[in-house]
Amino acid sequence: MPTVRELVEQNQDRYVGWLIEACSIQSLHGQPDELARMATWVEDKLAGFGAATSRLTYESAPDALLGVLGSGDRTVLVYDHYDVQPVDPIELWKSAPFTPEIRDGKIYARGCADNKGDLVARLAGIEVYKELYGEPPITVKFLVEGEEETGSESFEGIASRYREELAADGCIWEGMGIDHVGRPELVFGAKGLAYVELYHKGLPEDQHSSIAVITPSPAWHMIEALNTLRDPDGRVLIDGFYDDVVEATDEDMKFLEELPFEEEAERERMGLDSFVADATGLELVRRYYFEPTCNIAGIVSGFTVPGASKTVLPKEILVKLDMRLVPNQSPDDIVAKLRKHLDARGFDDIGINRFSNEHPVRSPGDSLIARASLDACADVFDEAPAVSPLMIGTGPMYPVASTLGIPTVSPAGICRPDSNIHAPNENARIDDFLHIIEYTVAWLKRFAELDK
Amino acid sequence: MPTVRELVEQNQDRYVGWLIEACSIQSLHGQPDELARMATWVEDKLAGFGAATSRLTYESAPDALLGVLGSGDRTVLVYDHYDVQPVDPIELWKSAPFTPEIRDGKIYARGCADNKGDLVARLAGIEVYKELYGEPPITVKFLVEGEEETGSESFEGIASRYREELAADGCIWEGMGIDHVGRPELVFGAKGLAYVELYHKGLPEDQHSSIAVITPSPAWHMIEALNTLRDPDGRVLIDGFYDDVVEATDEDMKFLEELPFEEEAERERMGLDSFVADATGLELVRRYYFEPTCNIAGIVSGFTVPGASKTVLPKEILVKLDMRLVPNQSPDDIVAKLRKHLDARGFDDIGINRFSNEHPVRSPGDSLIARASLDACADVFDEAPAVSPLMIGTGPMYPVASTLGIPTVSPAGICRPDSNIHAPNENARIDDFLHIIEYTVAWLKRFAELDK
Repeated sequence: MPTVRELVEQNQDRYVGWLIEACSIQSLHGQPDELARMATWVEDKLAGFGAATSRLTYESAPDALLGVLGSGDRTVLVYDHYDVQPVDPIELWKSAPFTPEIRDGKIYARGCADNKGDLVARLAGIEVYKELYGEPPITVKFLVEGEEETGSESFEGIASRYREELAADGCIWEGMGIDHVGRPELVFGAKGLAYVELYHKGLPEDQHSSIAVITPSPAWHMIEALNTLRDPDGRVLIDGFYDDVVEATDEDMKFLEELPFEEEAERERMGLDSFVADATGLELVRRYYFEPTCNIAGIVSGFTVPGASKTVLPKEILVKLDMRLVPNQSPDDIVAKLRKHLDARGFDDIGINRFSNEHPVRSPGDSLIARASLDACADVFDEAPAVSPLMIGTGPMYPVASTLGIPTVSPAGICRPDSNIHAPNENARIDDFLHIIEYTVAWLKRFAELDK
Repeated sequence: MPTVRELVEQNQDRYVGWLIEACSIQSLHGQPDELARMATWVEDKLAGFGAATSRLTYESAPDALLGVLGSGDRTVLVYDHYDVQPVDPIELWKSAPFTPEIRDGKIYARGCADNKGDLVARLAGIEVYKELYGEPPITVKFLVEGEEETGSESFEGIASRYREELAADGCIWEGMGIDHVGRPELVFGAKGLAYVELYHKGLPEDQHSSIAVITPSPAWHMIEALNTLRDPDGRVLIDGFYDDVVEATDEDMKFLEELPFEEEAERERMGLDSFVADATGLELVRRYYFEPTCNIAGIVSGFTVPGASKTVLPKEILVKLDMRLVPNQSPDDIVAKLRKHLDARGFDDIGINRFSNEHPVRSPGDSLIARASLDACADVFDEAPAVSPLMIGTGPMYPVASTLGIPTVSPAGICRPDSNIHAPNENARIDDFLHIIEYTVAWLKRFAELDK
């Protein structure tokens, strides 16, 4: 019998081919035909392994897919998503985002790292598992949704509606990644997110800027409002913002002390003199995992063509704020506090449009699935895993981990720090892709065999 | 002999046809072919009246045109420009900006109010004058440049190089306008302008916003810098910004007291609760004419698609600032002070790109051309003129009024407060256009006949 590695390598071209196929589909928010194509692609793969597939529908959300295979009382839920981030600024891509290209051992394509790489690796992992060991002695439920990159707004509804279908003893959530020095990363929770647009239209039309001397400027008004939201050290100044924050415990801090964090490499990669608030060492790591943010994801007003001048007083301004939340902040509560904060300072003329809305969440670090994921690292990776209590990104883990109460882990995944997820030239290493296939086989086996 | 009015009305279709022709040409900065087409169009018209035309060249600037006609020792210089402002946001135009459309007695087209309407009316005025009175007994020099809307950067050079060709006893500068209640507006000076781009690139690429918790945000950094530049009452906080400002004198204030200013109409047109700093009455008028500004003409960073979300930490931010200056501020000095101000506050990583650069300027209110322009108002308009010491907009008047020392007046022109100059749906009233033709004939006659 070949080893897992040997079998993966024998099938390498076939699995990379799957990845290229998946990354060629433009499964972007607002492109229902392409989202549907991608859903069908995943469904066909699952059905090909003999999985019973079904569509989980909820209002106007893209269909989520459920694919159930294997048998046995112990059940693992595998969560991935088939949608991808927008591609702009498109002009900064070196190759077209939906024409996957392999250069120097890396695939370049939108979605290859977030999250089609993990998804395809897990599908391949099932095939390898079955070829080596036959039908899994546990139940494996693939849950693949199509709305993650716009905030999984329907996922709470899907989880509630399909509570029984989704029941499981543990959940494997997307993929965390592999860190700077090749250590597999695992987390047992995720930050939350409140994403809003701040909008102010103060004038009926754009005006000649000569009247700016007497006419209130919507742009300046917004700048003044923004300035009340955050101090230069990153501290969020929204009234009551930190009320529900659970500070890192002594145990968390001990945990963080053991966590490898390549401070210098990260600083250099970013070309920075220093991090926010000049934080270094353990304090930097603490901030990384346990501090919430108020980030400007975008801002636009008036005339914006670089290198040209137009003397205009813009009628309006739009700002995108994404606020990463930590347990136990609630996105609803935070947005309500933002509204109140603005109103109290004379900015009641600034509108708030809400988009993403994700609760922060934490699962225990000693569940069956947590132990299987950790143990499997040793089977595949040379480096010991880097385990953190919370992932710094956001995933709609809350409905599974909290609403359905399924212990959840986001294990080693294809994403590297330089994978440029959500940015131009998203990429993933082919070698990592093969490792995640192997790792999928390993944790399936560990999860099936672990004593309670 | 018909009256001026009768002759203008007889030829109305012909002159409106000229205006439509002129406004159909896309004489935008960066479109050299269209700028050249427009220059030729003006040149052909001038040559058609028997003017001796020539091109005033300076480095890479679009050619300025000089057209000399009439004869006599007394000389008037007529300044206009043939370039127009950019058209974006194009989607807000009700008809295409370069396909002039007449609706309800108004022409809609980019440039029809600023400044092709005045230019064409003056060309028509020459034709009417000659038909009624023959060759003018004064020398009339048309000076039409093609770089006004991007700050007339070469105009100082053109004025110096062609000092002798441009010599005159008085200068008619573009057109000021007609106010809310139909009063012809005249001014003897203009504000200056320093237009800059503030630019900050702090990261090598756009990043996933999850790392904003430790990674300094270029956008926030810029917001913090902006916040040091202006207070909510419009007071500019750049160190030393007001050092060279000449305050309004008691005489200026008396003058402003007589100046009609439709405060309520202006407030309602803008849909405002109040003006900047809650100013009203004479203080509002003083601000309007005698205060400088620091306006945000544009700002852009990161993801800006309305109604969608992308969680990104943008690598860079661009801000366009236009600072309107009053005598005796100098644009060079103000930009140097901005640089120093930013450096002193830790914003030395914010770059400044300079664009427009115009000196504020004032001419005397009792020159020959000032008197001719004022007297001619009574010949044409029912309403008494509204005279202000300084125009709130900017024109490159400085090289003519200061470098060449020619007394300058910006007289009644086609522009109304609701003409949307520099904005979508720029428009001008056909009736005003005909009035400005008449007015051109009137001030030519007055200027020729005035005793010294």
